[in-house]
Amino acid sequence: MKKIGLALLGLGTIGSGVMKVLNENGELIKKQEEIEIDVRKILVRDKAKKRSVEIEPSLLTDNYDDILNDDSIDIIAEFMGGEDPAFLYIRDALRKGKTVITANKEVIAKHWEELDEEARLSGAGLYFEASVAGGIPIIKPLRRSLQANRILKIMGIINGTTNYILTKMTEEGRSFEDVLAEAQKLGYAEPDPTADIEGYDARYKLSILSTLCFRNRVPVDRIYCQGIKGISADDIKYARELGYGIKLLAIAKKENNKIEARVHPTFIPLSHPLYAVRDSYNAIFIKGDMVGDLMFYGRGAGDLPTASAIVSDIITAGQNGKHYYVKFDQEEPKFEDNWLSEYYMRLVVKDQPGVLAEIAGIFGRHNVSLDTVIQKLRDKNNATIIFITHKASEKWISNAMKEINASPSVISVESLIRVEK
Amino acid sequence: MKKIGLALLGLGTIGSGVMKVLNENGELIKKQEEIEIDVRKILVRDKAKKRSVEIEPSLLTDNYDDILNDDSIDIIAEFMGGEDPAFLYIRDALRKGKTVITANKEVIAKHWEELDEEARLSGAGLYFEASVAGGIPIIKPLRRSLQANRILKIMGIINGTTNYILTKMTEEGRSFEDVLAEAQKLGYAEPDPTADIEGYDARYKLSILSTLCFRNRVPVDRIYCQGIKGISADDIKYARELGYGIKLLAIAKKENNKIEARVHPTFIPLSHPLYAVRDSYNAIFIKGDMVGDLMFYGRGAGDLPTASAIVSDIITAGQNGKHYYVKFDQEEPKFEDNWLSEYYMRLVVKDQPGVLAEIAGIFGRHNVSLDTVIQKLRDKNNATIIFITHKASEKWISNAMKEINASPSVISVESLIRVEK
Repeated sequence: MKKIGLALLGLGTIGSGVMKVLNENGELIKKQEEIEIDVRKILVRDKAKKRSVEIEPSLLTDNYDDILNDDSIDIIAEFMGGEDPAFLYIRDALRKGKTVITANKEVIAKHWEELDEEARLSGAGLYFEASVAGGIPIIKPLRRSLQANRILKIMGIINGTTNYILTKMTEEGRSFEDVLAEAQKLGYAEPDPTADIEGYDARYKLSILSTLCFRNRVPVDRIYCQGIKGISADDIKYARELGYGIKLLAIAKKENNKIEARVHPTFIPLSHPLYAVRDSYNAIFIKGDMVGDLMFYGRGAGDLPTASAIVSDIITAGQNGKHYYVKFDQEEPKFEDNWLSEYYMRLVVKDQPGVLAEIAGIFGRHNVSLDTVIQKLRDKNNATIIFITHKASEKWISNAMKEINASPSVISVESLIRVEK
Repeated sequence: MKKIGLALLGLGTIGSGVMKVLNENGELIKKQEEIEIDVRKILVRDKAKKRSVEIEPSLLTDNYDDILNDDSIDIIAEFMGGEDPAFLYIRDALRKGKTVITANKEVIAKHWEELDEEARLSGAGLYFEASVAGGIPIIKPLRRSLQANRILKIMGIINGTTNYILTKMTEEGRSFEDVLAEAQKLGYAEPDPTADIEGYDARYKLSILSTLCFRNRVPVDRIYCQGIKGISADDIKYARELGYGIKLLAIAKKENNKIEARVHPTFIPLSHPLYAVRDSYNAIFIKGDMVGDLMFYGRGAGDLPTASAIVSDIITAGQNGKHYYVKFDQEEPKFEDNWLSEYYMRLVVKDQPGVLAEIAGIFGRHNVSLDTVIQKLRDKNNATIIFITHKASEKWISNAMKEINASPSVISVESLIRVEK
């Protein structure tokens, strides 16, 4: 029976979850996996703080060196969150030859190469299943089940808070502000919800996923990012009429060594399996050149789901002992900003003859062809016009929108949302 | 660079798919996985037959001994289908110490222990990712990503043909017979569709999945099985009105060492992610005690998706060299036949006073309480009554149905379909 000396960095929600998994299923793991996981130290800020799990007080330390210098500790599991000091702690552990399991999306997204290199040098392992989509197995399946594929496309709902908000807005017809306030009250959204609603959280995760899938570093700053603040109940209503729902999607594609990566609110068909991903659930849609479309669905956060992923990594690391390095493609990819997509847009215009012809003319001059045009909801002198375009480049759309914005017939551009199928 | 000598048993749809994956992505696999897969022999029935892939004729053999006695062959990949002679071929390969990759659900479902034992004795490996749900990674994630969980429940759409038929019936309002005939014409259903539409195919796969999840052998003959022949367009219409869709589900649960396993048409809520699984797609819903609900979605059949799973197994086997044995629970489970579920039922009754009270009385006497009752569609002297029950045991339902069938007020019991949420 292999015995693993484990240290935890952090004893908040996730740390307590890990303790609970080990307490409840440790015997099962011992029997099935022939591995015994022994928690030897836990780094906390305040040793005297009351904990939701019962912990032997001698395990607690507030000094990281106690862990780093303890030779009986083979694996360090980190879930403090944030870049600092987690990055340094992880780096120092790897330097010492200790394997690291982390749920830290920010550290992996920002410091992948450096940490990978440290692990390679010392022979330690670096595992991060829990850094993307919580309990959903995605990193390991990508590495160990899809080796025969080139991954062509990723489309993910990888932020639970925004999916919860959009689901409530859709199913209850409520406004963004209203649902956000409720989510904050219930603890589903942070007091400062910026990282979630602006898409930054999803961006870190997409950086990790696309780096792994495309075997090219996809740095965070190469990922276009737009949050859900601008989504109105009206857009959700119109979307539904047109056969679509609105989701915050993290999308990445690679073709002919060109990569595009972006996080933004997106129209997807009501019949798409991602549309059925409700509440705070996450799901990752993957297209491989051989396997076709796949989707992985589950809890993207929460103590026990995240702990399930962390403990799985601990077992794998304990059994293999060695790191599964990513071999990056030699060829540098091009990052494409001028991607093609279909667009939904909603304009309020003056209700007078010739306006539709004028706008259609602007689109035409900028190569943007139209799939659907609906004019509705006249009130007094105004009309609302909704367009869905065929595929058009970002530049064409941006040029057309400049002209449309400048037209005296156009009162306002209410929304502009990309469509994916 | 590790070099693997591979033999293929079969060169039909899947065999050709494997050749295509190796031809197109062999270089990628070499670079990423540091493994070179060299096809050294292919067993075929007719060496002279024209093939859809280009094959060096010297690779073909019609004599299995040529493969079994070739020491340069490390791994044998089998996709002939059927029990005989595939089972003997696999067994003999394992006896010789050759690792086997198989897509053969029937052989694994029927001969798991025997083959596992052969592999254990010789040190060979036995891998069967492709035997369940084609290209969807499910066997490996269960083994390698969910080790920290007790799996409580499996609900799968694991037969593409029946899902295709039910999708068409749902979306186009057509009859079972009509859609089946079309599916046969298009090649989506076999000329003899029995194994698919009666649920036998799904039953093999559920046997494998539940054996793996519960760490107890769940033999095929312990799985209740009912096909989709009895589903009418009317039931699908009523289901929708009540907020449900109808899917052929493979369901297995384990609680307190009691296992129930069954394949049957099932009402599931329209909001359930399994409902969004359309056409010939497959999906497997898993509930773990720590991770909560997960779903794995993708192509359950087809040349390239299945080949993706097979080649992944070949790579894993080539890298690890050794078998990942399942450790079965020591304790013998009980198989529960008298499970609890909710029921939908549709009766045609005489349109006369007191009938509803009479039927409700029968249910009441057999402990079956009712959630929903709808009476509709009177024509002349008849009325249709639709019930959805609360949870009731199979026995209670069966006893109640006997009495209902015998009542002179009841003209016919049109359907009886279980509900899962």
